Amino acid sequence: MKLENDLLLRVARGEQVARPPVWLMRQAGRILPEYRALRASLSGFKELVETPALAAEVTLQPVDILGVDAAIIFSDILVIPEAMGLTYEMVEKRGPLFPQTIKTAADVDQLLSGEAAAAELRYVYDALAITKKNLAGRVPLIGFAGAPWTILAYMVEGSGSKTFSKARKLLYREPALAHLLLQKITDTTIAYLKQKVHHGADLIQLFDSWAGILSPAQYRTFAIPYLRQLVVALEPLVPVTVFAKDAWFAVPDLAELPCHVIGLDWTQDPREVRNRIGYGKALQGNLDPCQLYAEPAEIHRVTTEMLKAFGTQHIANLGHGVYPDTPLDGVRAFIGAVKAYRY
Amino acid sequence: MKLENDLLLRVARGEQVARPPVWLMRQAGRILPEYRALRASLSGFKELVETPALAAEVTLQPVDILGVDAAIIFSDILVIPEAMGLTYEMVEKRGPLFPQTIKTAADVDQLLSGEAAAAELRYVYDALAITKKNLAGRVPLIGFAGAPWTILAYMVEGSGSKTFSKARKLLYREPALAHLLLQKITDTTIAYLKQKVHHGADLIQLFDSWAGILSPAQYRTFAIPYLRQLVVALEPLVPVTVFAKDAWFAVPDLAELPCHVIGLDWTQDPREVRNRIGYGKALQGNLDPCQLYAEPAEIHRVTTEMLKAFGTQHIANLGHGVYPDTPLDGVRAFIGAVKAYRY
Repeated sequence: MKLENDLLLRVARGEQVARPPVWLMRQAGRILPEYRALRASLSGFKELVETPALAAEVTLQPVDILGVDAAIIFSDILVIPEAMGLTYEMVEKRGPLFPQTIKTAADVDQLLSGEAAAAELRYVYDALAITKKNLAGRVPLIGFAGAPWTILAYMVEGSGSKTFSKARKLLYREPALAHLLLQKITDTTIAYLKQKVHHGADLIQLFDSWAGILSPAQYRTFAIPYLRQLVVALEPLVPVTVFAKDAWFAVPDLAELPCHVIGLDWTQDPREVRNRIGYGKALQGNLDPCQLYAEPAEIHRVTTEMLKAFGTQHIANLGHGVYPDTPLDGVRAFIGAVKAYRY
Repeated sequence: MKLENDLLLRVARGEQVARPPVWLMRQAGRILPEYRALRASLSGFKELVETPALAAEVTLQPVDILGVDAAIIFSDILVIPEAMGLTYEMVEKRGPLFPQTIKTAADVDQLLSGEAAAAELRYVYDALAITKKNLAGRVPLIGFAGAPWTILAYMVEGSGSKTFSKARKLLYREPALAHLLLQKITDTTIAYLKQKVHHGADLIQLFDSWAGILSPAQYRTFAIPYLRQLVVALEPLVPVTVFAKDAWFAVPDLAELPCHVIGLDWTQDPREVRNRIGYGKALQGNLDPCQLYAEPAEIHRVTTEMLKAFGTQHIANLGHGVYPDTPLDGVRAFIGAVKAYRY
């Protein structure tokens, strides 16, 4: 189906456009009253993730209500460990929790991987298919997954953590086992994302949420090679965005990946990054999510400044997921400023 | 009293030495069985912080047991908000918690500040005096405080946080109030640190633990000016180290402060930083604390590599506080590698 608004894909592919496309990480979520109403009627977060019609419904909400230039399928990066055999719980106000974690080679051996694991995630593919149908070509649909290092971090640590010291300890003490696990995660994620594309994803974003906790040397050893496998497998199908949060040191390595888009967090200066990596790839980001707490006029001003700093080949977004208590007026001011902008 | 081992101070002041001095952030703490034994006999963390003889005892433990080149007074950065009027609790396995937080101008008005607040911290000064006496000139004694932005972050947020979005919201919504609070914190911290020097601190380290969560522009506005006030007030007395964790973007700004030492976390490349800022200041850091989980021979190898990368004007340390479950053999391998090194 031809898209009515394909700004996102044209910028990802390096085409010239009149203004940047805009969407927000976590746009389908607690910022919208319509989401909170639906969520309150359910048993929990996982019911929403695992019920295709509901996941599709909340995926469409920001397109209908906020007028963003892309939808991103409502899901969670932790469906991958679960498909591999590690169930997770989502604990209210605390985040994800894995009752069982990976400790030994036997634990890694027992994990399902590749297409067999990806086949467990039928509900995600169904959600994509429903979303795609109901979008009716209005805007592109983004699919996503966690980067292999970030998924390993949760599988070994068992929850969020300030230091992820258990996960990082594995890299230092049992590097061979870490590589084995990363390869299984990568194989599963490739099979999963190919299915996502098959069911309607027009672009894939890889979230390396815990990238910034590794040293540059560790990141080159344990993260980049698996990101490369993913990008090489997917880029023949759709454009890929790599977002390695807080990994400012990895930008030159990311720039050498054959992906089309690099996501930036709000600590990065768009002009400096562009000077460093040249004009081959689109950049996505990077307003501080806290900026949306300011007055709308101020948000308009700083968003416009940001757009100027990025120049062309830019996908406007925040530098991280939108915070749940962000005022809708702030979100609208951000989106409005991008849509009013012209190169 | 003349120091037997003044390596740390000589390097901070730019003198030539045969090898780098070595100490570890959080060296007085749970890595030592002697600390854990003492801690287990007490009602809680705060009893240890607030009892001068006990704080002095654990301060000396790593000097006696590990042979580090400096002692750092056992205390907590949150004694400052408490002295200003906000009591904190230390919740086992969860970290600090403030039952009351700063929300309004009236809350800021009510805070004690400057010398009056610093006078509340008699127990810290007594701990320094006892430590200084019992050190008997063996090694220098380091005093410390949180940087103003980090202290504000706790006072507004009320606890640790992945995003510190309440604290950052204040910067965007009520910048004038944020500046007022930062100034009160700064005034108190200056008075406090002068007392610490008066009671025996030979060097002061400022910990900006949550530096990396601010955008570069926010850091320049809300952090650097207050760090500058602190450094300007203290440098006539003792050398100052500024450690702004995760604030890789701020290195050029930190390099312009009139301090003697800059601390680096493990994401930074020592050679790149040195190339960028030249040879005016000593650099401190920056081994990944997780590296100490590796085998001693491997720790020796990578520590030596790190020392080569830093070259001279270097104070060897980790890139963050040592993790509580680090094997003592790993800690000893790190210290041993530095002590065996010669320029």
